[in-house]
Amino acid sequence: MSTHAPHDPSSGTLSYEQAGVNYDLIDPLKISAQRAAAATAGHLSAHGFTEVKASRGESAYVVDVGPFYIASIVECLGSKALVADEMATLTGKSYYDGIAQDTIAMAVNDLITVGATPLVVQAYWAAGGSDWFGDAQRAQALVAGWKKACDVCQVAWGGGETPALAGIVESGRIDLAASCTGLINPKERLSVGDKLGAGDAIVLLASSGIHANGLSLARKLTERLPDGYLTEVEPGLSYGDALLAPTTLYSPVTEALYKAGITPHYCANITGHGWRKLLRHPGQFTYRIHTVPPVTPVLKFMQQHAQQDDREAYSTLNMGAGFAIFVKADQAAKVVEIAQSCGIAAWDAGRVEDGDKQLLIEPLNIRFGDDDLQLR
Amino acid sequence: MSTHAPHDPSSGTLSYEQAGVNYDLIDPLKISAQRAAAATAGHLSAHGFTEVKASRGESAYVVDVGPFYIASIVECLGSKALVADEMATLTGKSYYDGIAQDTIAMAVNDLITVGATPLVVQAYWAAGGSDWFGDAQRAQALVAGWKKACDVCQVAWGGGETPALAGIVESGRIDLAASCTGLINPKERLSVGDKLGAGDAIVLLASSGIHANGLSLARKLTERLPDGYLTEVEPGLSYGDALLAPTTLYSPVTEALYKAGITPHYCANITGHGWRKLLRHPGQFTYRIHTVPPVTPVLKFMQQHAQQDDREAYSTLNMGAGFAIFVKADQAAKVVEIAQSCGIAAWDAGRVEDGDKQLLIEPLNIRFGDDDLQLR
Repeated sequence: MSTHAPHDPSSGTLSYEQAGVNYDLIDPLKISAQRAAAATAGHLSAHGFTEVKASRGESAYVVDVGPFYIASIVECLGSKALVADEMATLTGKSYYDGIAQDTIAMAVNDLITVGATPLVVQAYWAAGGSDWFGDAQRAQALVAGWKKACDVCQVAWGGGETPALAGIVESGRIDLAASCTGLINPKERLSVGDKLGAGDAIVLLASSGIHANGLSLARKLTERLPDGYLTEVEPGLSYGDALLAPTTLYSPVTEALYKAGITPHYCANITGHGWRKLLRHPGQFTYRIHTVPPVTPVLKFMQQHAQQDDREAYSTLNMGAGFAIFVKADQAAKVVEIAQSCGIAAWDAGRVEDGDKQLLIEPLNIRFGDDDLQLR
Repeated sequence: MSTHAPHDPSSGTLSYEQAGVNYDLIDPLKISAQRAAAATAGHLSAHGFTEVKASRGESAYVVDVGPFYIASIVECLGSKALVADEMATLTGKSYYDGIAQDTIAMAVNDLITVGATPLVVQAYWAAGGSDWFGDAQRAQALVAGWKKACDVCQVAWGGGETPALAGIVESGRIDLAASCTGLINPKERLSVGDKLGAGDAIVLLASSGIHANGLSLARKLTERLPDGYLTEVEPGLSYGDALLAPTTLYSPVTEALYKAGITPHYCANITGHGWRKLLRHPGQFTYRIHTVPPVTPVLKFMQQHAQQDDREAYSTLNMGAGFAIFVKADQAAKVVEIAQSCGIAAWDAGRVEDGDKQLLIEPLNIRFGDDDLQLR
């Protein structure tokens, strides 16, 4: 529930906060949970192991178990399933194969930022009641999409939970999450920030659309569209269908880089907070972007209808770039080539420099400073 | 939603199925998901690893990564949080410290069955809206209980997700789950069934109460109690407080066994399906129980008010035994002693024999056969 003043959704700028998530209420819990979590690290020594402290604050948690590192994570899909449900009502189609890919992408794309090869995914499918699973077409689409995403990422689907949670999850809805465990092997692949330096290139990988972040805003926006989710983003493509493009899975790229002998100096999964995630690294660097990837049509459409200026749009949505790989400048062209060979467009988009902690998107004349992203 | 005929809750036998979970709707999905999951095992070979095939169908998934095995799992709390919410309204207390322990126990107690040392826990706390986290007392209890359970199990709390999922999770509710990653090290600790044999002892470890399984039945039962959750189970102890006793964490016992040089031949976490879980092992054995632990008061109370005979009660609830350890008969006394030194009562309760696949609870004259438990 938002503490913001009542807002007329039919006109004016629609920000992410106005779309319904109030971080002021969540953040104190997050901070105390992070502190309590950090205080448990010492337990690993009872088993002869240690945590990689720099991984706290990164996208996945890393433990040194001797011959290699183990990375683990749990990630939630968020509210994208609500768009799938609405579109299923409107079109009669099931979108849960794509939703499955989205859920796995949330976990896998975070896990690979620390240099890990994802090995095992576990499924968490909590439905509002047993009857959710009684819709065989939808349930089989979820299974098939989950399997396919595992195939793309070459991970083993270990198992999972399919609870029926009437009274907790809303009737007719499903709460989807994925946990993922991977190895950083050899240990030199570890990427938690210490390798990044001035002169490194910033390679941006194309997104397929909104992915699974910014959906509260996307859903809110339907109130202003003449035909809601069926409003066309471009001829023949509805807003709902465009939103439901499954999130790109980036682990084939990071695995191909490893095989080509390229070790990223850092990676950032561009999710919530949009391009501000390029400021994720804890160090003091200036990130100067000289090339901006083309904006995915659905995101351009959202920006227009939410009447956001570029600064707000890039601070909220991925705007066409779903993942950033920071590498030695002389490896940037090769990274672009490898990503393309995986079917993912990529751009040598900028450079890391010494200087104030800031992101400069030069073609758009946008600057984000250190206070624009507080994740730790 | 149940397909059973409408049922008068005020009298007669109340079974688990009548309490609202219809496995007929979930099971087809489970089976197709298990098949699809099994078909992904080959991906591990691309990374130089293999799955431990026998772990499919066990409580945690195991991968052979060379120097040791990695086990992973994700587990849901279920509906116990609804009891905590109701009791908070009635008493003004927050029960979320215990609920946190329950959630971790669901994951840790499953992970240790395969011989793993739990290393990292991730938190999945999906609330019905940001305002859930605005109740500072409740949120801090959740954090403190989570931390304390990690301390007891000597696991590192790696991080997690705290999404606000309005429209998916019901307003004012929270969907809690935990993922856990552990190591089986040395590899001889692996316990996925091949070690079990005739003559082995069955050691049962005490439960603290209902743990986190059978809560649908427990909640339904309040309709027949004069004062609902405030009905006394014994003088000074309300039904609600008794239900909310946190689930026993069994990993201190399995770790102490390892340090004492005792490797269980098999373990079973007694959760849903009650004592039928003692039939979990895939082999053909007769499990003959000669000693039945005292029934936890809240479970005896439930059995009485649900008007269940012993057979139905033992097929649904843990009835005082939360975990089973199968060991060489001459180690049983030592296992009991070690459990007791961890503060957990234990009994050398029976023996494994060659013969039909069945569980014979001799003191109660109960027999469960192979068709009474279909998990695979």
